[in-house]
Amino acid sequence: MNKDIQTLIASIKPLDAAAVKAAKERQAKLAKPPGSLGLLEDMSVQLAGITGRVRNRIEHCRVVVCAADNGIIEEGVSSAPRSVTMAQAVNMTRRITGMSALAKYFGDDVVVADLGIADPYDCPQILQYKLMPGTRNFLKEDAMDRETAEKAILIGAELAKAAKADGCDVIGLGEMGIGNTSSSSAVLSVLTGLSIEAVTGRGGGLTDAAFLHKKEVLEQAIAARRPDKDDVIDVIAKVGGLDIAAMCGAYLGAAACRLPVVIDGFISVVAALCAARLCPAAAKYMFPSHQSFEPGYLRAIDELGLKPYLMLGMRLGEGSGCPLAFQILKASCAVMNGMALFGEESVIDDDYLDEIRKGDSFSV
Amino acid sequence: MNKDIQTLIASIKPLDAAAVKAAKERQAKLAKPPGSLGLLEDMSVQLAGITGRVRNRIEHCRVVVCAADNGIIEEGVSSAPRSVTMAQAVNMTRRITGMSALAKYFGDDVVVADLGIADPYDCPQILQYKLMPGTRNFLKEDAMDRETAEKAILIGAELAKAAKADGCDVIGLGEMGIGNTSSSSAVLSVLTGLSIEAVTGRGGGLTDAAFLHKKEVLEQAIAARRPDKDDVIDVIAKVGGLDIAAMCGAYLGAAACRLPVVIDGFISVVAALCAARLCPAAAKYMFPSHQSFEPGYLRAIDELGLKPYLMLGMRLGEGSGCPLAFQILKASCAVMNGMALFGEESVIDDDYLDEIRKGDSFSV
Repeated sequence: MNKDIQTLIASIKPLDAAAVKAAKERQAKLAKPPGSLGLLEDMSVQLAGITGRVRNRIEHCRVVVCAADNGIIEEGVSSAPRSVTMAQAVNMTRRITGMSALAKYFGDDVVVADLGIADPYDCPQILQYKLMPGTRNFLKEDAMDRETAEKAILIGAELAKAAKADGCDVIGLGEMGIGNTSSSSAVLSVLTGLSIEAVTGRGGGLTDAAFLHKKEVLEQAIAARRPDKDDVIDVIAKVGGLDIAAMCGAYLGAAACRLPVVIDGFISVVAALCAARLCPAAAKYMFPSHQSFEPGYLRAIDELGLKPYLMLGMRLGEGSGCPLAFQILKASCAVMNGMALFGEESVIDDDYLDEIRKGDSFSV
Repeated sequence: MNKDIQTLIASIKPLDAAAVKAAKERQAKLAKPPGSLGLLEDMSVQLAGITGRVRNRIEHCRVVVCAADNGIIEEGVSSAPRSVTMAQAVNMTRRITGMSALAKYFGDDVVVADLGIADPYDCPQILQYKLMPGTRNFLKEDAMDRETAEKAILIGAELAKAAKADGCDVIGLGEMGIGNTSSSSAVLSVLTGLSIEAVTGRGGGLTDAAFLHKKEVLEQAIAARRPDKDDVIDVIAKVGGLDIAAMCGAYLGAAACRLPVVIDGFISVVAALCAARLCPAAAKYMFPSHQSFEPGYLRAIDELGLKPYLMLGMRLGEGSGCPLAFQILKASCAVMNGMALFGEESVIDDDYLDEIRKGDSFSV
């Protein structure tokens, strides 16, 4: 494996065990039945393990979007033309797509990186990391060279580290790339051994006939490319995408610099699984957002041992679940930081009642 | 039925069909695959039907908490002492409970109304509507008189109307009342014909033995009280609670003044079902929030034809899901108001691409 990627992976450390313990102790003292805030409690403990602090704040949030085209769309696996990748990447910088309208409303940053948009455009706000003008058609040849996949991973890691340097408290990873549910289904099928049937959906909205065709193309492509399921980079290079590679790297980069990172939908969770296969410790830095409508999503999030917070039937991609998840992470901090503490002995003890009756404030 | 309640129910109108149609038309023009924003799309259409406007804003949000004690706790059906009702109602006004810490963080109002807190306290911020010092033990006698239930319903309606008058864009309905998962299970069981076994959970956290006892008590109580399942107010009066009655009225009041209203967890959804049984049109003004851990929640939300947005394993009550749902409703407005529109003919048409290439803005 590329030495820089080896170094990146080696720099990822486990969660801070002392902070996790201290956060659990504080959670146990919050004035509520133990466990009654469910995953909000778990999030606050995980955040503590990431940052090393019991009380955290999630204020500066950023969606990082990796945009790239996919040669496989030559096979008619997508309902939208290739030009939509470019058009929507540009529109994200204007905050008029689904994700970016949400990010604008909630005050989140959006960073769009071009890893391989095929069509020309003029938009200086898009970060230029184009490695090739979209992947090759992986029914006929490898989507990209191994070296290109490695470069994309390292670019993704730099995008995460740049967010940390810019003072972000969390990032979420989104994508734009017509055809990328096909590459994601192929990668997920190879990595997990699950059938294409089990992990493939209609993406933006295919007809019945086109959906059948998409699955046939993916099965044929995997048979032809023969990726090594134990070599994640080989899988990404042969049947994946530049967006998946860069997002995989961004998950690793976030973990390396101890930055919480939110998974969006199907493409994002497949990239997260790639990162976790390369470095299991990286998964401890990840937070889910919504349950994508794509059937492969649940298979991948299960593999990561995570449960999505939101059930909204969304399947837009872009990172559209991330601004919503940021609000939930903020909520987990709000209860950890803002709730009263009980005495140690019972859910409501005499000192607590006495204090209320006196009208004093609690130490919070 | 009480004439004021009859008048209240008669004042509830269907959603504005023209606004619903116009909102669906606008949703269809948003620059995304149709349906790809899932429930965020449905919420924006429902909001339009409520307000009569295609584009809405959800800014001023309020959690309305109905607090009251439950005589049934004499039977040992709760893990917490009665005094917690009073203590946490007071603490809500200080924004140091789970829900109120969330509301403080997100800038939401909290209004706490005392419908029947048994223990004394000194807290002028709590609105005084005490009808009795908690319900009677409904294993032994009716929880309250029918007239009291009716009064509580009308108080709840006034709380909703006051929120509208104060300029709220949405309210969420929470509660505080030790023992109120018991009353809620009893009401739900009677209204739906489902067994106590099917609709009863551990509330704040009962031991196995206490959980069995809780279910036995509820079965005996329903057999003894014999509420008329076709008479919602009879059910509430005999085996319900003052909080449930007031929340039921608040749902009706919200619908009557065309105010969107968010359902919290188990107690809140049982009250919502009571309101929908009294007036089916009222359900069109309701939005779910999170899926409570209490098993009866799903039965009740199914009856309302709703699906919760959030899966966080929460079971705190108080209205703690409401501040989270408010953020999701805000998100639905952000996409409806902030996304670019397509031309009418295709997902991405030439005019659209031309406009992007020119660098012009869209009409939004």
